[in-house]
Amino acid sequence: METHEVVSRNADRYVEWLNQACSFPSLAGEPQGLEDMASWLEARFEALGATTERLTFEGAPDALLATIGHAAVTEDEAAGKSVLVYDHYDVQPVDPIELWDSKPFEPVIRDGVFFARGAADNKGDLVARLAGLEVYAELHGELPFGVKFFVEGEEETGSPSFEGIVSRYGHKLAADGCIWEGFGVDNAGRPELVFGAKGLAYVELVHKGLASDQHSSYASIAPSPVWHLVEALATLRSPDGTVLIDGFYDDVQAPGADEVELLAAIPFEEEAEKKRFGIDHFIGGDTGVDLVRRHLFGPTANIAGIHAGFTVPGASKTVLPREAMARIDFRLVPDQDPDDIVVKLRRHLAKHGYDAIEVSTHSMEHPSRSPVDSVIGRASIAAAKRVWDEGPVIAPLMAGTGPMYPIANTLGIPIVSPVGVYRPESNIHAPNENVLVDQYLKIIEYTVAWLEAFGEQTAGA
Amino acid sequence: METHEVVSRNADRYVEWLNQACSFPSLAGEPQGLEDMASWLEARFEALGATTERLTFEGAPDALLATIGHAAVTEDEAAGKSVLVYDHYDVQPVDPIELWDSKPFEPVIRDGVFFARGAADNKGDLVARLAGLEVYAELHGELPFGVKFFVEGEEETGSPSFEGIVSRYGHKLAADGCIWEGFGVDNAGRPELVFGAKGLAYVELVHKGLASDQHSSYASIAPSPVWHLVEALATLRSPDGTVLIDGFYDDVQAPGADEVELLAAIPFEEEAEKKRFGIDHFIGGDTGVDLVRRHLFGPTANIAGIHAGFTVPGASKTVLPREAMARIDFRLVPDQDPDDIVVKLRRHLAKHGYDAIEVSTHSMEHPSRSPVDSVIGRASIAAAKRVWDEGPVIAPLMAGTGPMYPIANTLGIPIVSPVGVYRPESNIHAPNENVLVDQYLKIIEYTVAWLEAFGEQTAGA
Repeated sequence: METHEVVSRNADRYVEWLNQACSFPSLAGEPQGLEDMASWLEARFEALGATTERLTFEGAPDALLATIGHAAVTEDEAAGKSVLVYDHYDVQPVDPIELWDSKPFEPVIRDGVFFARGAADNKGDLVARLAGLEVYAELHGELPFGVKFFVEGEEETGSPSFEGIVSRYGHKLAADGCIWEGFGVDNAGRPELVFGAKGLAYVELVHKGLASDQHSSYASIAPSPVWHLVEALATLRSPDGTVLIDGFYDDVQAPGADEVELLAAIPFEEEAEKKRFGIDHFIGGDTGVDLVRRHLFGPTANIAGIHAGFTVPGASKTVLPREAMARIDFRLVPDQDPDDIVVKLRRHLAKHGYDAIEVSTHSMEHPSRSPVDSVIGRASIAAAKRVWDEGPVIAPLMAGTGPMYPIANTLGIPIVSPVGVYRPESNIHAPNENVLVDQYLKIIEYTVAWLEAFGEQTAGA
Repeated sequence: METHEVVSRNADRYVEWLNQACSFPSLAGEPQGLEDMASWLEARFEALGATTERLTFEGAPDALLATIGHAAVTEDEAAGKSVLVYDHYDVQPVDPIELWDSKPFEPVIRDGVFFARGAADNKGDLVARLAGLEVYAELHGELPFGVKFFVEGEEETGSPSFEGIVSRYGHKLAADGCIWEGFGVDNAGRPELVFGAKGLAYVELVHKGLASDQHSSYASIAPSPVWHLVEALATLRSPDGTVLIDGFYDDVQAPGADEVELLAAIPFEEEAEKKRFGIDHFIGGDTGVDLVRRHLFGPTANIAGIHAGFTVPGASKTVLPREAMARIDFRLVPDQDPDDIVVKLRRHLAKHGYDAIEVSTHSMEHPSRSPVDSVIGRASIAAAKRVWDEGPVIAPLMAGTGPMYPIANTLGIPIVSPVGVYRPESNIHAPNENVLVDQYLKIIEYTVAWLEAFGEQTAGA
């Protein structure tokens, strides 16, 4: 296969691109790391012949818009077809840093595995797509349609400015379909495509119940903010994962018959997943399609962090802490509304006597789903069939979150999250994040394949 | 008053002694700070004419035994009367360090208040007693009885070696009564004496429920160690403070009629305490003697610390944490046994389905009570009447913990915790620990007074 040969010949260079991209600490709280990463991307895009532009927005790292191909040189953009490609150049924090086997921003390759923060989420996809553009140009010359890369810098903090950016610059983003950050392959290496993302309501609960820390002998008579918060948390969810907030499930749209059919076809490797988690059974004891359905269509309440008092290892301080904090991320499914969920959470706390607990919102995201049967959907599925022998696996919704809503719902551009560099062992959002070098190279080939397929699908338009 | 004049004349020197003592970071994890503090004490004791000896014990900072007065020069110690004085030279950790207004080990005096870690617990008492010995010598010459200072270095981590040290060196500690680390004055400045201490079972609960941290999208199907721990904690205690562990209260000895009478005479300043805590009501809505009884005779379960996941301020990481940890200190009353309580805790967790949670014990202490009507009890009460116009307030048990059991129960020496440098605003175990300089100087006078009173009580023996 010609594409394969071109990628193989340039493999070392493309791995070096990923190495460079993963060397920048481009995360919240590191403005220099974010800026260095953005500048590096601009230089790469321009080297590929793209026109770049910064989409600035108050308080947010600059988003990048890079346009290449036919649409870029057509005065009347509406005359040409175009694909919007969404990625983000920011990464998750690195804590707990002590569990990393190598430094998060000093990539290393061990036994064909490339380790670095951001390698899987989402720099691997982004850089593979850059490489794919170069390979396409070598094989075919100029793109017969437009490709617009829209790369934001605050996805990992919940894309708080994304709606604002899309609202301000929406006229520049118009396209016939959107390629989202990549999904990946499953335990058996089968390629996966996803057509929607959960939403998110990330809240922090803080209870400042005492004027100051007290000697714990006063626990006899002074109310404990920590106990109060623990008791409040215990009212929010039952051990089987059911969220106990009144009205939490009101707006949940159950999957239709077509979607349940897609869910049933998803080969979820239960034993391998249990082994990876180190558990005996999944929540609620679910298996089979029930398990897949719960994973993709079940909203969650997760305690992402909790802290109070004295937790330094080794010493045992007897203190009645003055305050306690917990962070909960609710993953939401269509058509739950994150703002509405926070209203219902506050109402729940008040109803149960916990109204002294302060609730603040950190990041909020609407869930969103696109149809499988769109031009971009068909192109990305056809391309997957060319590159992999098996699959593809098609999921109508993914378990994770992404800001698809402003693109899919506000701008009305159908989205697909195509095959990407992720695999279950990629440790995204965790220590030792990694990608397989071979899979990364294959995603470069796949990028060429969906560019080709989109061209074929739209050639007659 | 002659004592008052001598103390006043030397006040600057004695404050400087306290300043020096509070400059050593003598806490767990700081072996050099502990050793420097021990050496400083030895030098001070020897300057007062005491004989010093280190009571070594494997794994523990050296305890100091300093002997002065008649017993020190009598071959047949049994022929002379003696007082054992218990103090500790270690202090609590300093976290949360950011809430301190000055550095914990760089003492400062602001408006007559002396701020430093350890000033109130327990270096203030210890140094005041050293000063008291010097003043006594200036007023009266040699002590007509023996005084043995027994100063340990790991009280703040629960005195894990104390029983062993007392068992090994008990023959050197024989005495007719024991002066414990000082209690203090109440909100109105009334002197307080205490005749017993609660016990402690300090446990750490850890639940390692997943092989590694996971992206929180897996919260849909993977059990959460944090939720599991929160749910387990919520079964341990009801919001009114009642501990729900089977058999927890089995060995609790209710106060007798005499003790309830003492409790009723304790002028607990409810409004001032509520204001200090920043609360509207005490646990269970108790007031009056019920409140005092709950405070002194009520065992507790306090969450001293809890931690899981991502808690760094400012960023919102969406992680399903692989493990969760909570530290609980149970304050126990006579005749609860800390080992028995841990057995019952483990049984409770197993019974409720939480046996995957690991329980480790950090520090364990038996509760203990001595009779009010002993020679040392009468002497310390009489001395308080000489030095203060009001009170004293007499508590049969204190809300805090101390290792009285090996002395009072194993060696059979009656204990009193006499008036000390503490007051409710002292912030012990908390940021900005402090003592009033005036109160510190008064405790020097009080030390002279109880030395005199003990001599009078035993003169005819």
